[in-house]
Amino acid sequence: MIDTERLDRQIGFILEIDKLKRVFRRTWLLDKSRLENDAEHSWHLAVMAVLLLEYAEEPRLDLLRVLKMVLVHDLVEIDAGDTYAYDAQGALDQQQRERAAAERIFSLLPPDQAVEIRGLWDEFEARGTPEARYAAALDRLQPLLHNYHTQGKAWLQHAVCSAQVFRRNAPAADGSPILHEYAEGLIRRAVEKGYLAE
Amino acid sequence: MIDTERLDRQIGFILEIDKLKRVFRRTWLLDKSRLENDAEHSWHLAVMAVLLLEYAEEPRLDLLRVLKMVLVHDLVEIDAGDTYAYDAQGALDQQQRERAAAERIFSLLPPDQAVEIRGLWDEFEARGTPEARYAAALDRLQPLLHNYHTQGKAWLQHAVCSAQVFRRNAPAADGSPILHEYAEGLIRRAVEKGYLAE
Repeated sequence: MIDTERLDRQIGFILEIDKLKRVFRRTWLLDKSRLENDAEHSWHLAVMAVLLLEYAEEPRLDLLRVLKMVLVHDLVEIDAGDTYAYDAQGALDQQQRERAAAERIFSLLPPDQAVEIRGLWDEFEARGTPEARYAAALDRLQPLLHNYHTQGKAWLQHAVCSAQVFRRNAPAADGSPILHEYAEGLIRRAVEKGYLAE
Repeated sequence: MIDTERLDRQIGFILEIDKLKRVFRRTWLLDKSRLENDAEHSWHLAVMAVLLLEYAEEPRLDLLRVLKMVLVHDLVEIDAGDTYAYDAQGALDQQQRERAAAERIFSLLPPDQAVEIRGLWDEFEARGTPEARYAAALDRLQPLLHNYHTQGKAWLQHAVCSAQVFRRNAPAADGSPILHEYAEGLIRRAVEKGYLAE
C-alpha cells in the first residue's frame, strides 16, 4: 500500500527545487552568453566529482555521499540567494540567511529525508569529512575554470584581485592537493594574461 | 607524480560539457519563464533519484550507478540536439546522430573513463538493468511533472494527445510501478483539466 502523503511531500519538494534553475551566480558560461545558474552548477560539480575522484586527498571516500552533497549544496540559495564569493557585505549575514532557508526548504520533505538532506548540507558546510573537503575543492575549482576560460570576465567585472582568489581557493588544499595546485597554476596564469588583477 | 596529460584531458572534457547548459528541451520551467536546458534537467533527475529510491522496482539497486547514469545520459545532445519525445521525424535518425555524438564526446576523456562513461550511456539506453530502468522511469516522470504543473503548456503547444503521453510513460512501469501509476494518474487529471487533448 503506497503512502500517498509521503509521495506527495516528496513531489512537492521536487517541484519546489525547480526554483534553483532561476538562482544566478556571478560565473559566466564558457561562451559568455549568460550567467550560470545554481542547478547547472550543481550538475557540473557532480560530473566533476565522478571524473576527478582519483585526485581526492582520500580517493577511497564515499563518492555517493559526495554526489548527494553537491546535488543539494546550493538549495538554500532558493531563499537566501547566491552570495558572491567576494561580497564582504553579503557574507555578514550569509550564514543566518542560509540557515533559515535550510529550515524552510528541507522541512518540505518527509522527516527522515529532511534529516538526511539537512545532514548532507551541514556536512558540506562544515568541511569536516574527506567527502565534504573533496566537494569543497570541486566547488572552488569549477568557477575558477569558468573565470579563466572566459578571460577573467567575472573577475574583471567585479574588480577582484589575485590575493582574493588565492584565499578563496585555499580550502581546496585539504580536499585535493593536486586540484588545489592545478588551480593555483591557473590563477598565476590568469594574472600573467591580464585576466585578473595582481 | 601527477600525469598532467591525463588531467588536461579530464579538464578538457569538463569544459566541453558546459555546452549542455545551452541545449534546450521542450519542457518549461514551472514558472513558465523559459524552456529548461539539459544540464538543469540532469541535475533535477539526480536529486529525484536520491529522493524516490524507495519506489524503484528494485530498491536495493546501486544508487551511485543511477546517479552517474542520469548525470551523463543527455551529454550526446551537445552534438545531436534534443529530440522531442513526440517528434516522429527526428526519431528516425536519432540513434545514429546520438551514437556519432557519443563517439566524439566520450573519446575526449582518458580511455579508461571514456569506456566507463560510454558504458553508462549504453546501459541507460538499453534499459536492461534495474538501475537503467529506474533512471528511465525518472526521465519519464520529470517532464510529466513539469507539463502538468505548467497546465500542459508544452503539450498544447505541440498538439500532443493523451495516447502519446501514455505510450511515452509506459517504460516507467518496469523501473518503478508506483511512479508509473502516479504518472498515469497525472495524465488522466491533465485530460480532465484540459491540459492535454484526449
